[in-house]
Order: sequence, then structure tokens, then C-alpha cells
Amino acid sequence: MVPRMRRDIASLWLAWLAAMLLLAGCATPAQLADPLPSWNEGPAKAAIIKLVQDTTWPGSLEFVPLPERIATFDNDGTLWCEHPMYVEALFTFERLREMGKSNPPWRNERPYKGVVDNDMAAMTSLTGPEYFQIAAMTHAGFTPAEYRKAASDWLAAAKHPRFNRPYTDLVYQPMLEVLAYMRANGYKTFIVTGGTLDFVRAFADKAYGIPPEQVVGTSFAATYAFTDNVAILRSDPRVMLLNDGPGKATGIDHAIGRIPIAAFGNSDGDLAMIETTTNSPQSRERRRFGAFVWHTDGVREYAYDRDTHVGRLNAGLDAAPARGWQLLNMKSDWKVVFPFEVPKP
Amino acid sequence: MVPRMRRDIASLWLAWLAAMLLLAGCATPAQLADPLPSWNEGPAKAAIIKLVQDTTWPGSLEFVPLPERIATFDNDGTLWCEHPMYVEALFTFERLREMGKSNPPWRNERPYKGVVDNDMAAMTSLTGPEYFQIAAMTHAGFTPAEYRKAASDWLAAAKHPRFNRPYTDLVYQPMLEVLAYMRANGYKTFIVTGGTLDFVRAFADKAYGIPPEQVVGTSFAATYAFTDNVAILRSDPRVMLLNDGPGKATGIDHAIGRIPIAAFGNSDGDLAMIETTTNSPQSRERRRFGAFVWHTDGVREYAYDRDTHVGRLNAGLDAAPARGWQLLNMKSDWKVVFPFEVPKP
Repeated sequence: MVPRMRRDIASLWLAWLAAMLLLAGCATPAQLADPLPSWNEGPAKAAIIKLVQDTTWPGSLEFVPLPERIATFDNDGTLWCEHPMYVEALFTFERLREMGKSNPPWRNERPYKGVVDNDMAAMTSLTGPEYFQIAAMTHAGFTPAEYRKAASDWLAAAKHPRFNRPYTDLVYQPMLEVLAYMRANGYKTFIVTGGTLDFVRAFADKAYGIPPEQVVGTSFAATYAFTDNVAILRSDPRVMLLNDGPGKATGIDHAIGRIPIAAFGNSDGDLAMIETTTNSPQSRERRRFGAFVWHTDGVREYAYDRDTHVGRLNAGLDAAPARGWQLLNMKSDWKVVFPFEVPKP
Repeated sequence: MVPRMRRDIASLWLAWLAAMLLLAGCATPAQLADPLPSWNEGPAKAAIIKLVQDTTWPGSLEFVPLPERIATFDNDGTLWCEHPMYVEALFTFERLREMGKSNPPWRNERPYKGVVDNDMAAMTSLTGPEYFQIAAMTHAGFTPAEYRKAASDWLAAAKHPRFNRPYTDLVYQPMLEVLAYMRANGYKTFIVTGGTLDFVRAFADKAYGIPPEQVVGTSFAATYAFTDNVAILRSDPRVMLLNDGPGKATGIDHAIGRIPIAAFGNSDGDLAMIETTTNSPQSRERRRFGAFVWHTDGVREYAYDRDTHVGRLNAGLDAAPARGWQLLNMKSDWKVVFPFEVPKP
């Protein structure tokens, strides 16, 4: 019998040989393929590829160890279409109107009245806290599973008024490629959204390959009960974390607990997320990357460059060049916007 | 030149060969080794191994797909020693006393007074919300990085009064083996603790191999500011989620968003976590596993079977047999308790 030590060495040697063969056999085609085929050649595509190469190639001066490879993505307007209205708001308002039928007092009560009356001016002038109070009310009493089921049923039926397709068809193909490319290079991709956990989790895994534990969103207080041997958690009508704007910095800290390497957003609601990424005291310990999807394409999507649909000036467009963030110009950087536009081979 | 298709086939074949060699070279020793060497043979060890085998062997009727392999672990009393006092409470009280020197009004104010006076009776009779209000006060104004640094410095210096070792030496060797064994089989391991995010994150990665994004704990509201080009998040003196007892059901939903496959606890503070795992409406879709560390060993650790050190009756010891949870009997199931007791080879 071979002595123990020598058998271990033989095993190690075989494993090393196998690993080398595996690299030789598999890695070459992947390296030759364009990881971002829906991006035009230009500064945006080059910057994303350079980031990934610089932070993941062994021997690179800016190499980032695997556990620290965290990338965060806003959802509305960064990963999917948010025009003419946030998708979740449409669902929330529909639910509130439905619930309003059995809650007549709401009809005369702010902030519910405008929504129950389907008053567009009132709806678009809701403040953030007012909107999320409405969202809290529509979640209240539901379990996470019930709410996700309702959201998922609604998403399967609802269609975008202009594109006449389900909203989940209106994800951005170039951003799907960024997600896949970063994951293929060891990045853990998180959604950091103003949307609610249960709405976004209802489709994020299927649409983006992002599992529920990597969705950071607006959350509600909840009440737990163990009755007749069944454990049930139901939402309360109270926002726990409003994960938008400055709340995204809190959400990242609570759910991730690391400064991301890269953050992608598209509105003022994302400033704190991207600033946290590139301008925290710890940011300088590693290479960081901030990026801003710039809605310049009124033909293929929507052009809402400065005035966002919720009426706010987009300070991110000034912040981007000042802080070295990369603008991702939808019109000039993206060959296609949506997956259904990808030419069939 | 070899035609493209044939080169691809050759590459695939090489990759397959390499994978087979890799399996042949590496996997055999790992399969032969005992994954839980610090556990005595018995029902507890057998149940843990059976769970992992049943849920991970391809072809098993109870096979669980990789993304659903989630296991949650309480920290205090489940992964490390919580006697004679919660480790974090010692740190929190020390900080409060330090801060109290410059905050004289606290000296006469509940719940701070008893702690500032170092009045043991007052400290052990604090309610959960009172304790966490004190914790909130000691976090307030600090950034997550500052707080973790303070916790980590304290942990490097403080010693357990009986064992005269750093608290991070007093992790449970058998549970470290469970963590490693489950991770080696594709489980993502989460801590779900009543402790605060920043305290537990200060040592969880090094002590348990659990990264910050897999620590679910008590959290505080925070205030974000971007000043002089620096992004800073500071804690407010307000609890956002009290992640203990029923709060653990909320914490699991918010941070993980899946029903775990397995949950390990040791006190009434863990009932909701384990019930959520084994008794949720979705629990029956998969194999589930609840386990309860039973503190029976007054010689090697502490025996606090029914009366926990915070004075509460341990209803989990009744719940465990009634709900099919596995008791992990420290005295009879564990060969050693702490890593420093492991015999040197």
C-alpha cells in the first residue's frame, strides 16, 4: 500500500492537474465571447469591463477578494422601465381602490382619498412618506407569501400601456448582461430599491436571477403569531425602513454590512447608495465604481433627462461627473433596450 | 486548423475529463472523513447527518435545490457561551457607564440608572425593550465601522471570568463543525441573533466564517449625511427591529425572505425562528429541521436546563419533543465543548 502521505500528494497533484485542464478546457471560449453584446463600444462599456477585469484578475493591483465583491442595483429606471409610472405604484393603487370598497372612511381621508378617486394630480403629488403609508396599508394583514402571490398574479396579467407587454418584459437587456457578467466574475448582485420587499421579490429571481435574500427594499413592521401549530407573520400598516434616498444607505448597512464595490442607479433616490459606495471613509481601501443610467432615448424608451416623472430635478446628472461616476447613456451606449429587441441568431 | 465545432467538443470533453479527475482526486478523502468529529455517535449527530444527506444527495426524494439551502443559527447559547451574562450586554453596559460620565442626567433615569450604578439586580431585571434602549443609546452617533472597531477592540482584550480566555475562544466546537458541514454541502448559513448587527458582525466572520450580509440582528434607525464629499451613516438612539423572540420571524422575512430548511436555537428567544422554519404554511413543501442546544453540562460549560440566566422558563424544551425538534444534549452529545479542548493530533 502507498504510504498515507504519498497518497495525499498524489491526490493533490491529480486535483491540480484536473484544475488546470478544467481551466484550459472551459475558460477560453468564455474569455473570447463579448460579455456585454448589447452595449456599443464606448466609454461606458469600456469602464464596466475595466472595473471587472481590474478587480478580479489575479495579480491585478486592484484585485478584490471574493467575499468583498458586492454590487448594488437600483430597480426602477435602472433595471426595468419606470415610465409612465412606477410599476409597483400601479399595483398598490389598484389594491387600495379594491380595499377602499370595504373601507368607506378612506374616501375622505388623506393620503388615501386621491388614490381611491383615481385622481391623477393627487396621485402624482404624493410625498414619499404618503406613498409608503398607502403601501403599508395595502400590505397590512397579509403574509409575505400571500402578498407575493398577489403581486406575481398581477404582473402576469398587467400590460404596459405603450409597449403592450408584461412589465417583466421591460427589463433592460444591457443591464441583464451587466448582472450576469459581474456574477460570472464572483460578484454578489443585490437590488437596493425603494420598492417593497415582497413586490420586488415576487419577480426579481426570475427576471434578474437575484434571490430574495439579495433584495433590499422598503419593509414593514410585522406581527408574528403561533396558533394551532402554525407560524404566521402578517404585515402591520407601519413602515419599518423607507429604503429610498438616504434610506438606501441604511438599507445597505443593515442588509449587507459592507461598502459595495459598485453601485448602479438612475435618480436622486440613488444618490445615497452611490455616494456610500464611492465616498465612504472606507471607500478608498478598494477600487469603487458608481454608475448612472441616463434616460436619453425617447424613441426606444423615454427621455427624462432632468425632469423625472415625479417632478424632481435629477441632481445625479450633476453629481456623476463631479464624483467620477460613469454615465450610461441609454441612447448611445445601448444597442437594444429590451430583451425582445435582441436580434434572433 | 480544427473546425470550430470540433474544437468546442474537444474542449467540452477535456472539461468533463478534468471534472472527473477532480472528483476522483479530491472527493474521496472528504467523504470518508467524519464531518462531525466532536459529536458522540447518537440521535443528534445521526439526525444532522441524515438531514444533510437527505436534502443534498442527488436523487434523494427530499433533495433541496441549492438556492433554498438556508440554515439559521441563534448566536448566544447556540454558537457561543452566554453565561454568566450575554457577552454583548457586558460590552454595552461598560460603554454606557463610560458615556454616563459625561451624561450626568442618566444617573437618575431608568433604564440607565441601574447600569450606571453597576447594580446587578437592576441589570438582570431589565426588560428586553429596556435593554435594547440602552443598546440604542450606546450605538447612537457612531458609524457602523466605528462601532465594530470598538467591539472588536473590546473582544480582543476582555476575558471570560471563569475560563480566563477571550470570549471568541468560547465558541462551540461541535457547532463550528455543523456550520462547516452544512456549508460544504451548499447551505448558506445565517446568524439570526438578538444581538446587534454591528456587535455580532465584529467577530462573526472570523469566529464562524459568517460574512456580514449573513448576520441578521437587532438594528437601529440611522441618519445619513453627505458632507464635504464624505458619505456618513450614524446610528440614531432608536431600535428599528428588535430581532429577538417574535422579532426573529420578522428578521428572517426581511433579511432572507425564505423559510429556512434548518434552524438551531437554545432559548425561548428562538421559538419563533424555529417555528417559522418547521411550522410555516410553506414548511411542508420541503424537509425541515429544528434543533435546540440543551445546556446540560455544568462541568464543562453551564447547566441551565429550565431556568435560564435571564430567569425565564425554557418553553423550548417542551416545544422540542412536541414539534419534532432535535435536542442537542451538550453533556452527552458533545465530545468537547470549546475548540481549545480538541485533542492535538
